[in-house]
Amino acid sequence: MSTPAPIDYADASPEVRAVYDDIKKTRNVPDVNNFWKYLARDPATLRRTWESIKEIMGPGTLDPLTKEMVYLAVSVTNGCGYCIASHTAAARKAGMTEAMFGELMAVTGMANETNRLVNGYRVPIDPAFQT
Amino acid sequence: MSTPAPIDYADASPEVRAVYDDIKKTRNVPDVNNFWKYLARDPATLRRTWESIKEIMGPGTLDPLTKEMVYLAVSVTNGCGYCIASHTAAARKAGMTEAMFGELMAVTGMANETNRLVNGYRVPIDPAFQT
Amino acid sequence: MSTPAPIDYADASPEVRAVYDDIKKTRNVPDVNNFWKYLARDPATLRRTWESIKEIMGPGTLDPLTKEMVYLAVSVTNGCGYCIASHTAAARKAGMTEAMFGELMAVTGMANETNRLVNGYRVPIDPAFQT
Amino acid sequence: MSTPAPIDYADASPEVRAVYDDIKKTRNVPDVNNFWKYLARDPATLRRTWESIKEIMGPGTLDPLTKEMVYLAVSVTNGCGYCIASHTAAARKAGMTEAMFGELMAVTGMANETNRLVNGYRVPIDPAFQT
Amino acid sequence: MSTPAPIDYADASPEVRAVYDDIKKTRNVPDVNNFWKYLARDPATLRRTWESIKEIMGPGTLDPLTKEMVYLAVSVTNGCGYCIASHTAAARKAGMTEAMFGELMAVTGMANETNRLVNGYRVPIDPAFQT
Amino acid sequence: MSTPAPIDYADASPEVRAVYDDIKKTRNVPDVNNFWKYLARDPATLRRTWESIKEIMGPGTLDPLTKEMVYLAVSVTNGCGYCIASHTAAARKAGMTEAMFGELMAVTGMANETNRLVNGYRVPIDPAFQT
Repeated sequence: MSTPAPIDYADASPEVRAVYDDIKKTRNVPDVNNFWKYLARDPATLRRTWESIKEIMGPGTLDPLTKEMVYLAVSVTNGCGYCIASHTAAARKAGMTEAMFGELMAVTGMANETNRLVNGYRVPIDPAFQT
Repeated sequence: MSTPAPIDYADASPEVRAVYDDIKKTRNVPDVNNFWKYLARDPATLRRTWESIKEIMGPGTLDPLTKEMVYLAVSVTNGCGYCIASHTAAARKAGMTEAMFGELMAVTGMANETNRLVNGYRVPIDPAFQT
Repeated sequence: MSTPAPIDYADASPEVRAVYDDIKKTRNVPDVNNFWKYLARDPATLRRTWESIKEIMGPGTLDPLTKEMVYLAVSVTNGCGYCIASHTAAARKAGMTEAMFGELMAVTGMANETNRLVNGYRVPIDPAFQT
Repeated sequence: MSTPAPIDYADASPEVRAVYDDIKKTRNVPDVNNFWKYLARDPATLRRTWESIKEIMGPGTLDPLTKEMVYLAVSVTNGCGYCIASHTAAARKAGMTEAMFGELMAVTGMANETNRLVNGYRVPIDPAFQT
Repeated sequence: MSTPAPIDYADASPEVRAVYDDIKKTRNVPDVNNFWKYLARDPATLRRTWESIKEIMGPGTLDPLTKEMVYLAVSVTNGCGYCIASHTAAARKAGMTEAMFGELMAVTGMANETNRLVNGYRVPIDPAFQT
Repeated sequence: MSTPAPIDYADASPEVRAVYDDIKKTRNVPDVNNFWKYLARDPATLRRTWESIKEIMGPGTLDPLTKEMVYLAVSVTNGCGYCIASHTAAARKAGMTEAMFGELMAVTGMANETNRLVNGYRVPIDPAFQT
């Protein structure tokens, strides 16, 4: 009945350990963070979420720093405290400087403002943007 | 009583025209889009919004494409149809390819998902992220 | 299986008609708007929602115009198109001028921006605000 | 000037006590939780909110567990910490198992993700869904 | 430069067709809906999203109708028009009656209201809910 | 690499001090609150945000109390804890009584509920509201 999380490596099932091992190896970290230890309450969600994140945040046309900054901008918009803390750390690790953080927040704040100005002024889409 | 927007250049006051002129010159476009023509109902908001956007989206440490993609990610998160249409167009103009768009949407969607998993599992912030 | 809304007065049950009659009398209007005609699919929700709104939007310490402007600010924040249209009309009817609308949108937009700056900069609550 | 909440039973007015009594009787609990003790600052809102919740969460075609899980999914989507804590407790009391919690979070997370993919890809509604 | 969606079966790559075939077979439908035809712009996201949804919405401890109603409640909270239309259709197909829809909307609306009352009254979590 | 905020007056650059001085003079307060001390990490955002807020929250057709209550309603809708605390304090300072706070929360809560009922019932805009 009680919440069994967080699940540390020592207490984890083989299925959960396999995911932890892959996270640690892929990210080159000594331990997984709380997000994974809490998700481990549901091994299927733990595995599926990790596989999706591994694929989405892995090598592609967007560099890792850009992806982390977008992740942070979304988390700031949604007001997810844990996500803001963890992705700020991840973005810094990927190279985000103080100046970049400042600009990222400025864009994120402005977008949230103009999104509402558009709503309130009921602006119709320009034909040029329809395509 | 009726809504006087959109305000076209020909019908605009000198104050509004000055903003339109600066937008057209700064962005090198022949006309301003609907967002500005609707905001022109309130010249003070038109001017202040343009000055803020000009400063925020102008030269800095983040390149224009990254800024437009962040703007798009926030607009997608908030579900602002006009903003999604206009910033998709702006991001493409700044160099966003189909592959980049696909990755941007994948990151944006994933962030919205994990933001809620964190909420639901009530994950406490790791000490390492507190700083 | 098909959606039976909107339900016009002529087709309404006595229970639904009683709510429609009270709305028309309270607001001094010849007909109810679509919101009520769609809610009428569930007479219990129609009645409960009307009773709550009648009480909340009725006479109190806040004047009707202030209440309508708050309603509009929330609807703009949530991006509810129908609600923005109907409460803009209601606010105008209650006395909202173009200048007031402009200021209301400016405050609403700014609040949405600074809400996110606070999130991103992880600002702790000042002791003076804790009470 | 100071916030007079929470209002305990011993300090409550007869009007507030009547609501507390009905909550305790309806839910068969020895005391009301903080939500009600804070709402009691405004007796009219306390009474109206309780009457609405009593009606909505009471017997109907959806069983109590389903209603609590929907309440939790909405609270997780909105990121309301108190609501997540109280409705997780209520859902468990109504029979939510660990497996059900895991699936509920998975659906909630996925819906938040695909809601944004739909926004970003600007997917038009299929004619078959229009009705 | 132009948006290449929707991608119909006849124009789809073998990779995309394989996903379409699995959707059609799993759901026993003659064609996939617009969501998939638009996601097909990015085959990796199409495949990953389908695999996640197939797993999450498949057999488990929660019945298909409950899952669809939770999906709908989240979509209504986020205001995603396409998602509301498609998941209302899916919930009906899974057995949602008019009475169930009415109760689902009542719970969803109420949760969105009390989430904000909790925020505004700054209600602290009861010790009993901390676990 | 570490977060250099909050920046107190004694440690602030002349550029930041100039903003702090203007805030203190405009609001007639002995010190600025945390919001400004954290924003000071990015002097350009500090200055721009203050200038916008000074203009928006300054004298106009809407009185200061109404503006603060709208700010609070938006912050409650978005669930920004810091903003709720600081704007509740500001609204009280501007004259918000307990009765006004109660009504403001009631309207804010109700708007969040009916915004979702409108979404779920897919209510089309009445022709009378189109203008």
